[in-house]
Amino acid sequence: RALNKLREFVEFTGEVENVSIHRLLVLDEKHLAIRLVPRHLYRLWRMAKEEGKDLDVGIAIGVHPAIMLAAASSPPFGVSEYRIANELLDKKLRLVQCKSVDAYVPSEAELVLEGRISHKKEVLEGPLADITGTYDVQRMQPVVEIVNISHRENYIYQALLPGGPEHRLLMGLPREVAIYEAVSRVVPNIKAVNLSEGGCGWLHAIISIEKQTEGDAKNAILAAFVAHGSLKHVIVVDADIDVYDLKSVEWALATRFQADEDLIMIRNIHGSTLDPSANQESGLTTKLGIDATKPLSKPQEGFHRAHIPLTPKAKRIIKLLKRKGTI
Amino acid sequence: RALNKLREFVEFTGEVENVSIHRLLVLDEKHLAIRLVPRHLYRLWRMAKEEGKDLDVGIAIGVHPAIMLAAASSPPFGVSEYRIANELLDKKLRLVQCKSVDAYVPSEAELVLEGRISHKKEVLEGPLADITGTYDVQRMQPVVEIVNISHRENYIYQALLPGGPEHRLLMGLPREVAIYEAVSRVVPNIKAVNLSEGGCGWLHAIISIEKQTEGDAKNAILAAFVAHGSLKHVIVVDADIDVYDLKSVEWALATRFQADEDLIMIRNIHGSTLDPSANQESGLTTKLGIDATKPLSKPQEGFHRAHIPLTPKAKRIIKLLKRKGTI
Amino acid sequence: RALNKLREFVEFTGEVENVSIHRLLVLDEKHLAIRLVPRHLYRLWRMAKEEGKDLDVGIAIGVHPAIMLAAASSPPFGVSEYRIANELLDKKLRLVQCKSVDAYVPSEAELVLEGRISHKKEVLEGPLADITGTYDVQRMQPVVEIVNISHRENYIYQALLPGGPEHRLLMGLPREVAIYEAVSRVVPNIKAVNLSEGGCGWLHAIISIEKQTEGDAKNAILAAFVAHGSLKHVIVVDADIDVYDLKSVEWALATRFQADEDLIMIRNIHGSTLDPSANQESGLTTKLGIDATKPLSKPQEGFHRAHIPLTPKAKRIIKLLKRKGTI
Amino acid sequence: RALNKLREFVEFTGEVENVSIHRLLVLDEKHLAIRLVPRHLYRLWRMAKEEGKDLDVGIAIGVHPAIMLAAASSPPFGVSEYRIANELLDKKLRLVQCKSVDAYVPSEAELVLEGRISHKKEVLEGPLADITGTYDVQRMQPVVEIVNISHRENYIYQALLPGGPEHRLLMGLPREVAIYEAVSRVVPNIKAVNLSEGGCGWLHAIISIEKQTEGDAKNAILAAFVAHGSLKHVIVVDADIDVYDLKSVEWALATRFQADEDLIMIRNIHGSTLDPSANQESGLTTKLGIDATKPLSKPQEGFHRAHIPLTPKAKRIIKLLKRKGTI
Amino acid sequence: RALNKLREFVEFTGEVENVSIHRLLVLDEKHLAIRLVPRHLYRLWRMAKEEGKDLDVGIAIGVHPAIMLAAASSPPFGVSEYRIANELLDKKLRLVQCKSVDAYVPSEAELVLEGRISHKKEVLEGPLADITGTYDVQRMQPVVEIVNISHRENYIYQALLPGGPEHRLLMGLPREVAIYEAVSRVVPNIKAVNLSEGGCGWLHAIISIEKQTEGDAKNAILAAFVAHGSLKHVIVVDADIDVYDLKSVEWALATRFQADEDLIMIRNIHGSTLDPSANQESGLTTKLGIDATKPLSKPQEGFHRAHIPLTPKAKRIIKLLKRKGTI
Amino acid sequence: RALNKLREFVEFTGEVENVSIHRLLVLDEKHLAIRLVPRHLYRLWRMAKEEGKDLDVGIAIGVHPAIMLAAASSPPFGVSEYRIANELLDKKLRLVQCKSVDAYVPSEAELVLEGRISHKKEVLEGPLADITGTYDVQRMQPVVEIVNISHRENYIYQALLPGGPEHRLLMGLPREVAIYEAVSRVVPNIKAVNLSEGGCGWLHAIISIEKQTEGDAKNAILAAFVAHGSLKHVIVVDADIDVYDLKSVEWALATRFQADEDLIMIRNIHGSTLDPSANQESGLTTKLGIDATKPLSKPQEGFHRAHIPLTPKAKRIIKLLKRKGTI
Repeated sequence: RALNKLREFVEFTGEVENVSIHRLLVLDEKHLAIRLVPRHLYRLWRMAKEEGKDLDVGIAIGVHPAIMLAAASSPPFGVSEYRIANELLDKKLRLVQCKSVDAYVPSEAELVLEGRISHKKEVLEGPLADITGTYDVQRMQPVVEIVNISHRENYIYQALLPGGPEHRLLMGLPREVAIYEAVSRVVPNIKAVNLSEGGCGWLHAIISIEKQTEGDAKNAILAAFVAHGSLKHVIVVDADIDVYDLKSVEWALATRFQADEDLIMIRNIHGSTLDPSANQESGLTTKLGIDATKPLSKPQEGFHRAHIPLTPKAKRIIKLLKRKGTI
Repeated sequence: RALNKLREFVEFTGEVENVSIHRLLVLDEKHLAIRLVPRHLYRLWRMAKEEGKDLDVGIAIGVHPAIMLAAASSPPFGVSEYRIANELLDKKLRLVQCKSVDAYVPSEAELVLEGRISHKKEVLEGPLADITGTYDVQRMQPVVEIVNISHRENYIYQALLPGGPEHRLLMGLPREVAIYEAVSRVVPNIKAVNLSEGGCGWLHAIISIEKQTEGDAKNAILAAFVAHGSLKHVIVVDADIDVYDLKSVEWALATRFQADEDLIMIRNIHGSTLDPSANQESGLTTKLGIDATKPLSKPQEGFHRAHIPLTPKAKRIIKLLKRKGTI
Repeated sequence: RALNKLREFVEFTGEVENVSIHRLLVLDEKHLAIRLVPRHLYRLWRMAKEEGKDLDVGIAIGVHPAIMLAAASSPPFGVSEYRIANELLDKKLRLVQCKSVDAYVPSEAELVLEGRISHKKEVLEGPLADITGTYDVQRMQPVVEIVNISHRENYIYQALLPGGPEHRLLMGLPREVAIYEAVSRVVPNIKAVNLSEGGCGWLHAIISIEKQTEGDAKNAILAAFVAHGSLKHVIVVDADIDVYDLKSVEWALATRFQADEDLIMIRNIHGSTLDPSANQESGLTTKLGIDATKPLSKPQEGFHRAHIPLTPKAKRIIKLLKRKGTI
Repeated sequence: RALNKLREFVEFTGEVENVSIHRLLVLDEKHLAIRLVPRHLYRLWRMAKEEGKDLDVGIAIGVHPAIMLAAASSPPFGVSEYRIANELLDKKLRLVQCKSVDAYVPSEAELVLEGRISHKKEVLEGPLADITGTYDVQRMQPVVEIVNISHRENYIYQALLPGGPEHRLLMGLPREVAIYEAVSRVVPNIKAVNLSEGGCGWLHAIISIEKQTEGDAKNAILAAFVAHGSLKHVIVVDADIDVYDLKSVEWALATRFQADEDLIMIRNIHGSTLDPSANQESGLTTKLGIDATKPLSKPQEGFHRAHIPLTPKAKRIIKLLKRKGTI
Repeated sequence: RALNKLREFVEFTGEVENVSIHRLLVLDEKHLAIRLVPRHLYRLWRMAKEEGKDLDVGIAIGVHPAIMLAAASSPPFGVSEYRIANELLDKKLRLVQCKSVDAYVPSEAELVLEGRISHKKEVLEGPLADITGTYDVQRMQPVVEIVNISHRENYIYQALLPGGPEHRLLMGLPREVAIYEAVSRVVPNIKAVNLSEGGCGWLHAIISIEKQTEGDAKNAILAAFVAHGSLKHVIVVDADIDVYDLKSVEWALATRFQADEDLIMIRNIHGSTLDPSANQESGLTTKLGIDATKPLSKPQEGFHRAHIPLTPKAKRIIKLLKRKGTI
Repeated sequence: RALNKLREFVEFTGEVENVSIHRLLVLDEKHLAIRLVPRHLYRLWRMAKEEGKDLDVGIAIGVHPAIMLAAASSPPFGVSEYRIANELLDKKLRLVQCKSVDAYVPSEAELVLEGRISHKKEVLEGPLADITGTYDVQRMQPVVEIVNISHRENYIYQALLPGGPEHRLLMGLPREVAIYEAVSRVVPNIKAVNLSEGGCGWLHAIISIEKQTEGDAKNAILAAFVAHGSLKHVIVVDADIDVYDLKSVEWALATRFQADEDLIMIRNIHGSTLDPSANQESGLTTKLGIDATKPLSKPQEGFHRAHIPLTPKAKRIIKLLKRKGTI
């Protein structure tokens, strides 16, 4: 079985199941190291550790994207991510109980590793890549002992490449929702939010709004920083700019932005240590907000994109070409 | 009847009752001018105006503070503020129907004016004082025609002085809650929020937190600006500082703040035009966030307040004095 | 005799008497440690030390406030503070010679300790509170040997709590005068100066002026920084603001101040190390001057406080109430 | 003949031929308006105008890209762009004389319009799109009278869409060379320069260098601003970043840039009025230089991209797939 | 008599004589226009004007420099500048009464014009040069009627060229004293002050100090700005730099100054409208203070000027040359 | 022979002769230490060292200034500085071969030392003065063994004092040319460039231009920084200011400069470590560009120097005096 260095599904069953995605390092045929960021699974493991017990986990590989998305979201402690997945799947999620550990896994999983996170053994984990595509530092992390393995016939091994687009998408998507909602509360019309891939799905946001009054974009910038504390750079553009098209965003910077008026710089603020340029000890960083919306105080026509006016003949030709399916 | 320039209760009855507080100017025995800021009652009046109708209102003067607080809160359009008041009053709110207009008023009101906001007549309102204690500009505002008046025997006339502490408290309190919640989401422990009276209950916030990591206060500052868009200045202090005691806050500025590191200045952002120093046309202002928390990078003992150590004898004397009720 | 950690009067007699206030720490029945900041008494002690002699001092506790104020002022070396006290007391100051040491003390003192500051023995003094209310660092300081004690019958022990309002007032008052005079020389009309209690009577000044031309307040800020080198923050307000009422000062900040235009920040300047946030080795700090005066370039009426107009009837009632002593 | 609003080739013959690209607006069957930016052709037209003569021009449409590139370059006045084209074409450029005007055109041109730029008639030209894709303002521009037309059989009409990638490439390419040379003189190893399409091929440069000492990128930024005065924003990245891949450049900003240290902002400098956000009267703008190179003062390994280590087996498989042409 | 556009002595006699220097424009044989800046003579003229009277003046041309220096100083209103001159002249100043007007002039004056400043007639004065060497604006100014002229035989006509070194010296000298005293109060040892000629003897100060602690120079900068409100730029250097040798001062800037740490910029402050770059309506300007002293935090030897070490032989030769008077 | 610590001519002969100026320290009768900055001679010495050989040099003392200037210029490696000298001398440079080493020296040299730079022996050189007039740090540098000495009868010993005007002139002159050319490419008319003596002929440039559009001076500043990477401060003035007259330049700063608009500050950029205030490890410094040209947006007449208008009579007198040679 070709189990390698990667991020996998790990879950825990108690009164409610906690479902989350973790980086796993294959140590030998029966042991993995697991990276526990101080969130829910870490908290459960600490609770088990204080009782002197190992923590049962079911590791499901090869599941529906809705389950992955649910596992990547951050509901409050005590709310099972399986519920969220079930909603996304129109209540059709089916779970099965593991054979050797007290945990549930999706019935459709291609491959299931049943294991126990040791409350005693820790090993040096890494260096492995993180969401930024750079190497994370090495740390002592707990060991998972595998006690049972089951899989479908001709199972497909689904890998999640660390620092790849899928990793960025899963981490970033719930944050885009949070930013969307926060910005909605401070400016009348928000159109789109993109935690861009170049910003690792985590550090950069591009936001488009229908600007109503001068200063709206600045408020949107602050709202984004508050909604997602790891954000380092935010660009706000008008609704005619496509936040997924970097060329379009860059065009807004070229033609609608004046750095002395349109920049917010916030020094000495707590940011993300995933960014290697931030202070790795204190977590302090400098954030930059960029307002690349059209200034309302200047004639608006100067900022519009030129378009090719259509003659009646041109319209006829386009219609014809469309009908023929040529364009 | 001594009805003068002041802010009074105005409500509207439809499927749900909208309850809000408005400034009313006595024009003559039967007419008032009403200041309609573009919020819910304004919206209802616009709807009536478009149908060519006047809008019925019941103006209740002399009511329970819970009703005033509810009227000052901003639930979404379509949620009656009476519900909120009812909750605050342990479900004991009683309403009575007006005689001449389609509206409900609290049964306990000292004085009730029944009227109709004209969809045709507007007059120049003001100059009257606003929450800052300065004069608001004059504007054309609609006229209310009074069609019936009822009151208790020996009724008490309850006035709400514009720009006075009661005005500031009623407007500020719901905003303190919003800031409290927003800051709670970005820093682990928030202790208190004060929209200080000197800041007109609207423009200045003083926030105390239990700081965990360097940079927390900066994130709290941004969260406060986002939660209440009219905020101009925010000061964040440690939990040992009393946000209601300006002397204590000033002491934190004197001993824990270095302007070159601990200041966030945001220029050209949309703020409140209630502040006369803001640009009155564009609404642009400069916001300032001040981090007056102890720097974690310096020895903490230098920032602690000295205390008088108690000898056993002193403890005994204090105990004795307390027992006697002297202190 | 309940003599504890506190600041007491210490004086020295030579050709002229030097009078100053010092922190004294009780070591045992006969010895005190004395904190000598490098000013006049320190200089006299250094002179005695170089001649291999102890320095005689009379420590007077329980004296007239005029004597305390004189002792807190900083006349040039060689001018006795007793002269200043004598002027303040209409030439009625009476001194008596000590019995065992060569020094004079006010005849009215409740308690007099006669002692000698050793030129040999030093002990670790502190930690004791300083004017900021935080603990001063520990330092080697000279020992005073008490050689005689005299006191009135049923004498009152007058304590001066370090970091308390009395301490702040005595240190701050002469500085307010210096700032008043300095500002007077650069702007036409200065109204008041307050070294506020929240600023420890030392680090913050609030100054009110009658502004004549735009920029006056900036010049007043610089003058204040020059007149009192320990100042860290200065706020300048208009004459209608009460510099002793923080709420009023805060209101000026809320309604008359725009941070991008009205702030002076001076980095890397020598300030007071009493402020624990300043660099404790180099003494460098960042100073901030705030101009919260009305901008002359904007319509002035927007900045005036609203007032309640009095009807003839209201005037009559107020007159009546005043006559009856009700208000 | 479908001649529409577009940019065409215009040339002039004197002792040496001037060759340049100009925007032409069809007025009627025989007349065009020509946009003359104050450069060489404008200068020749001014010279003719002062002698009271029209200026002969040959307008060649449909030529080799080398001729277009040469026409877009800026050799000193008096050096024919035909010489440059001839070099680029291995000395194989062939010219033919026009029939009705004193001018030469490339023999291979698909379509040739012979005309005269009037020294008397001017018309309002525009609004037409410029390199930024926004509309240029309307201006009085001279009229070209067409006196002869010749073309190949089944000639191809070659259009140059204003503000399209071809327009940006032709204008930007010679500037990239200038920046490359200027930066080469101040930093040891420059790798690439991209006047990016999002920056309209004119306002934004992305430059990659092999950084030797801290501060190199800042010098590169200044050199770029000097080499191409219209530049508004410059980003300098390390040589491992692909300047043509915006995602890669954005990744450098996310992981290697701290705004408080790595930004150069230059206010009130002369820039390009093609940028509508610049001051259209004075031409003043704010330029921003961004150093997104790795800081040499921090451990370098934190900034490297993770790579997937190849096992011997993986290497064999890749080799096999490559041999089969699958990858 | 060749009386032309120039500045002359004008004085006024009352209980005490006011003595000051004024610009006089010859209108005709008997009339001059006088420039009255709103200081003492202006005040006296306003007083006379309010009583409906002309003001008697004695204009003395060709006097001792001590009298000119005294006239250029600014004692409080009511103190005669003649007293100051008398002190400077070892009590040997002799005055004589004018024949036709009530005024006194120095007995040694070469030329005396007796006149009356009209309380009615004003004329357009200027354009004449001011201390900056640029033209002052034209203003309506009062007319002086000459009623008597007396002079020595073969009198010397002493002119004071506006904007020339003498003008700058007379205005600047008293200001240098004020700055010297102000800086002395904030830093332990000040060596020299130069209101440099390039700074028009009015706008620029160069100050040398013996620096004791880091930050001293910043305090000296503020003190200078406060002592002379017209100052625009201040440079502070160490005592080894000659404040009168611009090359030496420039060397300090080249080798001891880092702009990001050593600059104080104060915007929007009231300065001198004699500087044409200042806002001529509001009087607002930007002041700049430059600390070009050696940083104490760096090794001091790097900042010392190299000197040529003398061998015993060289010393002998120098001694010999000095004895012979060769060097 | 009185050979002391000084800078001398050193040259090397290969296919082409490299000619450069180096600091030489007399160790004993036969040995000198030579300071090799990593440029051409250093490169040749490294090449010889790698082959295990010493490097032959001819040290010529007492030569024509054209040879010194050529030796101070920086042609590309492989171009002999003798060629440049030859051009400057109208092709009249004559060289002679050394007797004991393989090198050529100018035939007119007063004194020639023939030597070999050791590839083995190095000694601690210094402390000696550098161009700033401060002491350079001590470094291990190679030893030159002198193998032959020849000189003219009664030869003149020509010394080049380190840090003196001659040193500064020789180093600065070629840089002035580079700056002149660079600025010429970005602004229409440059008048003069002065690498001022106070700026050590290396760190400060004063540039005068004929300003055409607002912002020109800023572009000139950037061009100067790029042309000479060691520049720390640049001042740009109008063409009516004499760049060699510091008083005149200072006058421009006093009357045409407003620091908040006219300053470019560039932090953290690579500069010259010859400046002791720069970071001596990283080479980072802060550069300052000053635009002291007249603002075009203000009335120009306010910035002109007043001149003395000549009456016909004055013109005649001046003419007469000139004819007589008196002026």
